[in-house]
This record gives sequence, C-alpha cells and structure tokens, in this order.
Amino acid sequence: MNWVKMKITFEQEKKVIVALLEKMNVPNEQARFTAEVLAEGDVRGFASHGLLRLPYILNALKRGTIVANAEVKIVKETPATALLDGGHGLGHYVAAKAMQTAIEKAKKVGVGAVGVNNTNHFGIAGYYVEMAVRDGMIGIVTTTTDALVHPWGGVEPLLGTNALAMGFPTEPPAILDMAMSVAARGKLVDAMKNGQKIPESWAVDSEGRPTTDPSEGLKGALSPFGGPKGYALAFAMELLAGSLVGAGLGKGVDGTLEPVKGYSTKGDFMIVINPDVFASTKEFKERTNEYIKEIKSSNKAPNVKEIMIPGEPEQKTRTKNLAEGITIGDAAWSEIEKFANELGVELKSLL
Amino acid sequence: MNWVKMKITFEQEKKVIVALLEKMNVPNEQARFTAEVLAEGDVRGFASHGLLRLPYILNALKRGTIVANAEVKIVKETPATALLDGGHGLGHYVAAKAMQTAIEKAKKVGVGAVGVNNTNHFGIAGYYVEMAVRDGMIGIVTTTTDALVHPWGGVEPLLGTNALAMGFPTEPPAILDMAMSVAARGKLVDAMKNGQKIPESWAVDSEGRPTTDPSEGLKGALSPFGGPKGYALAFAMELLAGSLVGAGLGKGVDGTLEPVKGYSTKGDFMIVINPDVFASTKEFKERTNEYIKEIKSSNKAPNVKEIMIPGEPEQKTRTKNLAEGITIGDAAWSEIEKFANELGVELKSLL
Repeated sequence: MNWVKMKITFEQEKKVIVALLEKMNVPNEQARFTAEVLAEGDVRGFASHGLLRLPYILNALKRGTIVANAEVKIVKETPATALLDGGHGLGHYVAAKAMQTAIEKAKKVGVGAVGVNNTNHFGIAGYYVEMAVRDGMIGIVTTTTDALVHPWGGVEPLLGTNALAMGFPTEPPAILDMAMSVAARGKLVDAMKNGQKIPESWAVDSEGRPTTDPSEGLKGALSPFGGPKGYALAFAMELLAGSLVGAGLGKGVDGTLEPVKGYSTKGDFMIVINPDVFASTKEFKERTNEYIKEIKSSNKAPNVKEIMIPGEPEQKTRTKNLAEGITIGDAAWSEIEKFANELGVELKSLL
Repeated sequence: MNWVKMKITFEQEKKVIVALLEKMNVPNEQARFTAEVLAEGDVRGFASHGLLRLPYILNALKRGTIVANAEVKIVKETPATALLDGGHGLGHYVAAKAMQTAIEKAKKVGVGAVGVNNTNHFGIAGYYVEMAVRDGMIGIVTTTTDALVHPWGGVEPLLGTNALAMGFPTEPPAILDMAMSVAARGKLVDAMKNGQKIPESWAVDSEGRPTTDPSEGLKGALSPFGGPKGYALAFAMELLAGSLVGAGLGKGVDGTLEPVKGYSTKGDFMIVINPDVFASTKEFKERTNEYIKEIKSSNKAPNVKEIMIPGEPEQKTRTKNLAEGITIGDAAWSEIEKFANELGVELKSLL
C-alpha cells in the first residue's frame, strides 16, 4: 500500500469516516450520513467538500463547537413548512433530516419548505436535492457560507459563496449545484501555491480592482458569477438561508470552514415540490426526458464533444471514481492518519 | 402636444391601455391589471415590456389567440399549491390571479406554490413578486419564453430567456428580476439597426461561434449569462414553468412575443414564502434592513458612486419617470395611434 499517493474506494472512505466519528462519540446514524455526503463529494470530484473536511469536523467535535450527539428539533411547523434547530450538530445529518421533513410535507400537501439554523457545513448541496429526486420530487436547497464575495460595485466580502442546488426526477437526473462566486476560494489558494495567475473575473483586490494575482484576490474578495446577476442571486440566497431562518447574515456567518470561536452561525433553506400536484409526475418525467434528448442530440459548437445537462459532468466523474477509486491528497491523508493514531483507529483494518 | 417625440405620464399610459383593451371587449378588471403591469414596465425603463407590447396584444385579441374575457380556473389544488388554467387570457391578469392565490396559501400554511398554463406573456416578472412583498411575503416567480438561448456547448436556441424574479419585504424592497440570457434579443436588433457590434459574450452564430455581429447572433442563439451556470438556471426555469405546470418546453414554447399561429404555450411558476412561519417577519425585516445598510455603506470599487441592492437601479428610474414622464418611441406611438383610430378611441381626451 502506497501511503504517499493514497487511493481509496468510496466504501473505504465511508468506513474510515464512520470509524473516526464514532470515536468522537458521534452516533452511528449521524456518522453514516456524514460519511455518505463527504464520500459523495469526493467521488464527484469536489475534494474540497470531501475527506479534506473531516479534520476540521474532528477538531470542532473535540472543541465542542460541533455537538457530537445533537438532536434536531422542530421549532415551528405548518403542514407545508418547518423551522428546524440543528442543535449545532453535524451539518450533513441535520440537512438530511431537514430534507426528509420537506419531502414528507411535499408528499402530503404538494410542497414543503424547511429552514434550518444552529447547524454546520453540510458538504455538497447536490446530495440533498438528490434525496428528493429519488422520491420523484423536485428539490431546491441553498445554504450560507462565511462571507467571501463582494457586492456588485463593492470591495468587501459581504456575501457567502452560498451554494444553490436544484434537482429534477429526470433521466438522467438533472442536478444543478453551483456556488455564487465565479471560482471557489480554494482555487485561488491553489494558484497562489503554484505561482499561477488567475483570470481577471475571479476576484478583486482590497481596492476593488479586478486582479490576476491570487494573493491580492485573497486579500480582497471573490467576484460573483455573471456580474450583477450573480450578486443578486448571492444576496437572495443570503436572505433565504440567513435572516429568514434565524441564522447569520453577511459577516455574521461564521464557522463554515471550521467553527473555531464558537458555534457556526450558518443556515440552510430547502423547498421540495411534488410534480403530482401540478401537471403530474408521469407527464413531467416523460416530457422532460424527451426535452433532455432533444438538447443532447442538438448541434454542437466547434470542439464540443457532448452537450450535457446540469449534473452530467459530475455523474461521469462519479462513475469513473467509483470504478477506479478516489485519490486523496498527501496532506489530507496525513491529517487522517494523525487523527487515526490519536483516536486509536487502525486504518489498515478498514482499507 | 408633440406627436413625434411622445412623452406621457404613468397615469396617462394606463388610461390609454385600458381604453384600447376595453374596446376589444376586455373586462375592466383585466384591462386595469394589464395596463398596470405594462406601465410599470415603462416607468422602470423596460420599454420592451411596456406599451410596445400593446399592439401585439391587440392583434392577438382580434385574432382570438388571446381570449378577451378569459376565466382563470383552478385545475388542481392542495392547501399549499394550485395549478391554474389561464384560459388563454391576458397574461398579466392571469399571473396576478396566480400570485394572489399563492399569497393566500402562504398566509394560511406558510408557503404557496402555484403553476399556470394556457396563459400569455405577463410583462415584467418583478411586478408579481412585489405583490407578495406588499403583503410582507417573499415572492419567487419564473416564466418561459420562446426558445432563444443555446445550451452550454450547443448552437441551437432550445431554452427561453426565462425570467426569474425574487422579492423580499425589506427597506428598500429587494427585487431581483433577471433574464437567463446575457442580453435581451431586442438589444441585438437595436445594435443591428444602428450598425453597432455586440460584445462577444452575448450570442453565438449559427455554427456556435461567439460573434460580435448582431445579425449573425440573431441567426444563431443568445448565450446564457455566467456560462454553464446560467445555462443550468435557464434549464431549471424551463422545467419549473414548462413541463411541471403542463406548459410548453424548449421549442414547444410559442407565442410569447405575439401568439400568431395559435394560443401561446408558455407557462408560469411562482412560490410565496411567509417569513412568519420561519424566524419571524419582524426579525427577518430588522436583520435584513441592517444588512442592507451594511452593504450600502461598505467600501466602493474605483469609479463606483453607489453600491445598490437588487431592484434599486430600477426604482431610481421609476422615480425619475414618474416625475418626468415616460418617453414613448415614435414607432410604438404611431402603432398606438393606428389602433386608436381603428377602434374609435380619442387619444387626446386621455392625455
């Protein structure tokens, strides 16, 4: 086994995560949800939302800023809505519970809208809309992050990258999952480490000037995608998953990378729509599947091999990684080894 | 009175529209809704969604492809949702009825989701979310248009410009209202007429190559804003206001400029959220208003005079135009005069 360039399977990754979380007194169900979402992040090629996150989570569990055995409580409820208090628990588990609640409501009254506060980073937003899709529903999920994005015309980071995911029960499932910034902060960090320049559209420096220097961009703020439109969307998501659900807002959102100073103040908001209360699930699927075929078989631009629907590129990566295994970066793996030694988990027995 | 460069007030525009529509047997209530939304389009600076549209509407009323005295029917209903059949009526009236239905449901169960088919172009999407905002609610509205936008990597127009509007009860009201294309088709037509080039990001030619020639762009397709992200959003809106609600999809959406061949096949989808079932309306407003102040007083990029929240630029234009009057283009006004003569409406008595 090569401990320097680590390659593990999807199932192995989940086993490692569950084993480490259980040593931190996380109940098995909660550990399994967390492992599932992190491993799904890795197989889809979002390493920043995969195993890389586990050390931050383990540190926060030690510190008590993530609660190992949190109970998710319904604070307010109507037949179509719920506000959940995540009890500062693992964000993946809390968000999965929230999505289950939204799905149940949509099954009964056609739509379910659920807000969540007192929770933590939940990994890839796309995971939760897929839960709805598996039940034949349309899922919409948004969440806040620490403020990294500038308002249009502004300089200061006052908006989160605020993922928006939408999923549709189609063939293949159409899964949109996007951040409100042009590029992730991690890409600027990587460019800086590698001595590379960044495209001018990615970030502004601390004076608000577009910059190609990643270190200047990191001192300034990330730019919203699509100019003022992306800013408007980032703003809307900030309100939905922030002040609407009683979570933090703007600079008041803290701890989405790692809750250090105290509990994370991020929030989530999700909507599930049951197609059966509109045209019908059958009609929705049949007509949309035809439309997808039409898009995929339409004329391609020069040098384009395939026109894809939202979510298809990630599914291709997932299929490849499920077959070939997930490559874990050296630094990330040595962090895992460190925790395994400390917590008395024998990694070899899991791989 | 200068009949060549016509300038009219907001109230005059509404009177003219109501008078002409009533001559086409449109009931007063429906005429007033239509006039209100068209005039709101003009005062905000969206001439393409204002009086300019009236001749298309009048032609369709003559032809019978817009039904003058349509009845909006509820086809399916739950406490939280409704599917409406607009009876091929005036889109503005139908959408306003749909929004009223969604607001009523959100007042009762916290969220209301309403789909609409058999309807027509409804003007500016922002108008309807403002109806929710006036009732202290959050409004989300989307709608389909004739296919004008290419999928990412594609060449053919297979997606509508599909407006997405979101409104929040804040001070000032935050109103996002955007098309999924970088630029409106009308801007390419204007550039062509004026012999101007267009930015490379606006459109592709019929081979899928980015073009600066507006006539080539008009033969090709409009590009989605923000690259693949805008494509994914346009796709999602196409499904929500299309196959979900039993309306047309892709090339199957017809008649949003003017229903010529038959009834328009566009659809609408809207969601209203009552902040009181989440944190609370009071908390939502107070905290968001503070956040808006923080954004507006934050540091500005070079040459930026004011940082605005979504909807503020349009409100500034609206205030100016309410005070100074609305300039109506010569061609548009001569069309109105033509219809007025034909229908026996004395415009001078209304101005």
